[in-house]
Amino acid sequence: MKRIAVFTSGGDAPGMNAAIRAVVRSGVAHGLEVIGIRSGYQGMIEGDFVPMGPRDVANTLQRGGTILLTARSKEFMTPEGRAKAAENLKEAGIDGVIAIGGNGTYAGAAKLQAEHHIPVVGAPGTIDNDLYGTDYTIGFDTAVNTALDAIDRIRDTAASHSRVFFIEVMGRHAGFIALEVGIAGGAEVVVIPEIPTDAQACAEVINKSAEKGKRSSIVVVAEGGYEGGAEQLARDVRQYSGFEGRVTVLGHIQRGGSPTAKDRVLASRLGAACVEALLSGASGVAIGEVNDEIRLTPFKEAIEKRKDINHKKYELARVLAL
Amino acid sequence: MKRIAVFTSGGDAPGMNAAIRAVVRSGVAHGLEVIGIRSGYQGMIEGDFVPMGPRDVANTLQRGGTILLTARSKEFMTPEGRAKAAENLKEAGIDGVIAIGGNGTYAGAAKLQAEHHIPVVGAPGTIDNDLYGTDYTIGFDTAVNTALDAIDRIRDTAASHSRVFFIEVMGRHAGFIALEVGIAGGAEVVVIPEIPTDAQACAEVINKSAEKGKRSSIVVVAEGGYEGGAEQLARDVRQYSGFEGRVTVLGHIQRGGSPTAKDRVLASRLGAACVEALLSGASGVAIGEVNDEIRLTPFKEAIEKRKDINHKKYELARVLAL
Amino acid sequence: MKRIAVFTSGGDAPGMNAAIRAVVRSGVAHGLEVIGIRSGYQGMIEGDFVPMGPRDVANTLQRGGTILLTARSKEFMTPEGRAKAAENLKEAGIDGVIAIGGNGTYAGAAKLQAEHHIPVVGAPGTIDNDLYGTDYTIGFDTAVNTALDAIDRIRDTAASHSRVFFIEVMGRHAGFIALEVGIAGGAEVVVIPEIPTDAQACAEVINKSAEKGKRSSIVVVAEGGYEGGAEQLARDVRQYSGFEGRVTVLGHIQRGGSPTAKDRVLASRLGAACVEALLSGASGVAIGEVNDEIRLTPFKEAIEKRKDINHKKYELARVLAL
Amino acid sequence: MKRIAVFTSGGDAPGMNAAIRAVVRSGVAHGLEVIGIRSGYQGMIEGDFVPMGPRDVANTLQRGGTILLTARSKEFMTPEGRAKAAENLKEAGIDGVIAIGGNGTYAGAAKLQAEHHIPVVGAPGTIDNDLYGTDYTIGFDTAVNTALDAIDRIRDTAASHSRVFFIEVMGRHAGFIALEVGIAGGAEVVVIPEIPTDAQACAEVINKSAEKGKRSSIVVVAEGGYEGGAEQLARDVRQYSGFEGRVTVLGHIQRGGSPTAKDRVLASRLGAACVEALLSGASGVAIGEVNDEIRLTPFKEAIEKRKDINHKKYELARVLAL
Repeated sequence: MKRIAVFTSGGDAPGMNAAIRAVVRSGVAHGLEVIGIRSGYQGMIEGDFVPMGPRDVANTLQRGGTILLTARSKEFMTPEGRAKAAENLKEAGIDGVIAIGGNGTYAGAAKLQAEHHIPVVGAPGTIDNDLYGTDYTIGFDTAVNTALDAIDRIRDTAASHSRVFFIEVMGRHAGFIALEVGIAGGAEVVVIPEIPTDAQACAEVINKSAEKGKRSSIVVVAEGGYEGGAEQLARDVRQYSGFEGRVTVLGHIQRGGSPTAKDRVLASRLGAACVEALLSGASGVAIGEVNDEIRLTPFKEAIEKRKDINHKKYELARVLAL
Repeated sequence: MKRIAVFTSGGDAPGMNAAIRAVVRSGVAHGLEVIGIRSGYQGMIEGDFVPMGPRDVANTLQRGGTILLTARSKEFMTPEGRAKAAENLKEAGIDGVIAIGGNGTYAGAAKLQAEHHIPVVGAPGTIDNDLYGTDYTIGFDTAVNTALDAIDRIRDTAASHSRVFFIEVMGRHAGFIALEVGIAGGAEVVVIPEIPTDAQACAEVINKSAEKGKRSSIVVVAEGGYEGGAEQLARDVRQYSGFEGRVTVLGHIQRGGSPTAKDRVLASRLGAACVEALLSGASGVAIGEVNDEIRLTPFKEAIEKRKDINHKKYELARVLAL
Repeated sequence: MKRIAVFTSGGDAPGMNAAIRAVVRSGVAHGLEVIGIRSGYQGMIEGDFVPMGPRDVANTLQRGGTILLTARSKEFMTPEGRAKAAENLKEAGIDGVIAIGGNGTYAGAAKLQAEHHIPVVGAPGTIDNDLYGTDYTIGFDTAVNTALDAIDRIRDTAASHSRVFFIEVMGRHAGFIALEVGIAGGAEVVVIPEIPTDAQACAEVINKSAEKGKRSSIVVVAEGGYEGGAEQLARDVRQYSGFEGRVTVLGHIQRGGSPTAKDRVLASRLGAACVEALLSGASGVAIGEVNDEIRLTPFKEAIEKRKDINHKKYELARVLAL
Repeated sequence: MKRIAVFTSGGDAPGMNAAIRAVVRSGVAHGLEVIGIRSGYQGMIEGDFVPMGPRDVANTLQRGGTILLTARSKEFMTPEGRAKAAENLKEAGIDGVIAIGGNGTYAGAAKLQAEHHIPVVGAPGTIDNDLYGTDYTIGFDTAVNTALDAIDRIRDTAASHSRVFFIEVMGRHAGFIALEVGIAGGAEVVVIPEIPTDAQACAEVINKSAEKGKRSSIVVVAEGGYEGGAEQLARDVRQYSGFEGRVTVLGHIQRGGSPTAKDRVLASRLGAACVEALLSGASGVAIGEVNDEIRLTPFKEAIEKRKDINHKKYELARVLAL
């Protein structure tokens, strides 16, 4: 193996640059040439390749977003698109590819590897933490802290006005972000896709909180946690509660910002581990960190298996809202 | 003058606690007793009074929200409500009142003073900066920096994906927050109530930005800047632009958080100046800071006159988006 | 078991309040009364006890420091002091004690339990992460992120001026903080107690970095990592390097601040687990989290065994500084 | 005027990049070519010039440090050095120069203009705020907020341990930073060069604070505020006070970081105003902002006159520490 390529795909996540940097520097340390593919699979099809040396990733460790850009590619969804991409990779003499992204990125990588026999490994780059085969994904810790900062701010207003706030956080089909910020932000209720919540039960908790002397309540709602989102939940709860609810959808601020220490370290480890995995002959696998050890998981498994939330943590959130 | 009271009213703003602390400590330094009225005008009607000494405001300087709470009061809108409030004040031996809040707070204070001859002075506590008689209001600088942090985060994603973002910030009927964060955040377009913007012109700027090689554009929209808000503007712009726009409404996160240095210093000065104004016999005036000097403005003027944005700054925003 | 007590001791750490809150609320949820002991072992001797209910810990989750205060106690070092403390506990009807702190706190707790047969469990509250029996200590993640923020700031200046900065971080006799911020901050050299570094080798890395085109270098020094600290290392390096080094000792800013999400969640879990451990009859043990599971470790082991740094991470730091 | 140059010199300050960006974009908007000079006066002597267009300053608004770098130049102190610099400027066809920096930068600019008749204007880029002719310098607001964040963190520990902290902040020969963070951080004592403080008086305030029930005290010391700095003051105070003082020297963290909204807006305005001043024929002047208006001050005056602190603010700090 002489030359490898790296790209980012799907939604951007804080720490992607740290992973790219680790791939480049650790690749070069192992005597490899490293090529950056810009704009994900679309750039692979268009041959948007750029050689990367250690200095090209200087001063990127602390930056949000991805210096390699990311994009959706409809063309890559077709066999023709993937054939074109594979041809470009082979023409450029690329012996192995590192894909940083989420579930969709892994699915594309699996196809590229299966159809064109190009060695591909993946690193989990998504704020949602919804990938099997790793305890945490790159960007999750930063997104949680960004959402938490927002909740801390909103609590100032909630407490000053005796109000109930419904705060919708990201997470796609999973409640990881919501559960973590729910505990860390002292939410009275946490609404996640994994555990159905009905509006009446939610209203009861809020009403009881008021009886216990709490001046305000915070309800954290995962984006897939309630049909119609936080807006609808607030409307439904109003029927059972005297409180006027305010709704805030945190949205895209959760994707950006300088990565936390944890995300930078995780991304650095996983980026370097991807290089080592390729060098050791691995392919078709996602690289993760489980119990502080590097773990390889076949793409198929990483895509199909579902990582469950920690139900003890959900119970903890409930008890601590006492 | 022996005993004064202080309260906060209207939307909460970072720095209100710093102002309360300054009233209490500077009042006590002048030999006065200070009473805190909880929950604004409603608490005045209900007699929710609490004596405050220097230690009661310890460790509050850095807190968002307001330790005296704030609330809407329909009852105070009526002459009967105000009479009840005045009676409570007189019964409690209160010789002067300091009202911290926005336009509505000033209007209430003006009536209380006019109808019941209680000396009242006001301090501008609102994130919107839309009060005449002061260069800046307490909370504005913090809200601007909070919104700016959000825009910096969103730009990470915008730049990684080649996207146009429409970001709605607070400001009520004024564009102060939007203009400030527009310049500071490097927005391509700033949409404020003071200067009508049409969707086609906005789209043209975005299209030209793309032609100039910009990968992304940020449009900052003041909450009163466009009929239907940022959501509607994004829809309207889509007709004239190839770009897919994303919308983020920053909402209540702008009200909270630990106040910036500037807001703490401003609040401290104005709180102390309110005490001095009352002691010097002033009444029916709002206390502000203009060109680094304390300025007294009659409530009527403060309520009716409109502070305009700095049109050179608006022009600057346009030029710097080059 | 009907009544338990909780206290904090040793250096304060962000998240201690989250742990106290979890003890109180989870204790009450289990039908216990909870007593707070102020100022650590000294307060235990002086009988400075205060009953705590769920509302008493409201709004503390996000606060740095410890609401129960902490102090050194020479008296508790003596058998007489401990006897007095034990007597106070028994008189107050306390059936179990939860001690939050570091190594010294555990040592005191072990003696109290051994000499006076009072059930005691401990939770790891220290920014240094130097406690055996837990992957992370409460406060470590926050301290790392605070130090990282400082390093990010200093890098701005280092890069603008072509300078070498020596930054000393906390950690007592361990390099956990230094290693984590070294990787996350992109340090050229990380100097920790676990692995001896000589000034000449350090200078060589800096010189080579300059040859590779790096405009600046950052050397992160753990407080116990070099005889004489960062100041001495900078002086020694100067002999072998043309660069003028600047030194910054981060100091006490690393102890404070609002805890990160990770620290709040960890503290919440461990606080609740302490209550459950006491209820299940455990005593003389430290409660930790290992591989996301609660782990009980006898005090003796927790005090005597040494948790080593991850040597692969140290190697990673070296490679990524390429 | 067809071609202008811009450079940064002296200590770096947050917002310098915003000023460079404003010079470039506003210059181009006025039909000028803009040349960046790297590494200040040293780069001027070495002819380290680089043409800058609007895209070259993209994504720099939010970055600390200076993309044009800064350096000390002994050679420029000599007439020969300055002659060489002037020759380079003329050879490159530069019709006007914009110097961003502090007092030393202005002094160099004044000589360059006087000796070689090259139009030069200056913008105040320094965190210390010690320049006459402007209310605030670029970087001051950011430095104040960075120092304030540090003080907020330290207060957590101070309050938890009943300790006195002496915190040394930057400011060169002026107390602007110290005074601002002293008020904003609720310091018990503020020690600045403009007003001599003796250790005994300082100790008395601390002792009285303890008597009043304050658990901790913060003393903010400007770097030039006490002979021997915060360390010496702490030692001297110990003689008159029972408290054990801890010292933290904030150091270089105050120079870096993403600029605040205020610094970005100020830098943007001043950068654009520099271009307009050159175009209007101005030379040998520093551009500042006084009472929200652009003000031109001859270099000689800007260098020689001293801007005093606001003594009412100093008095306010004293009263609010009650």
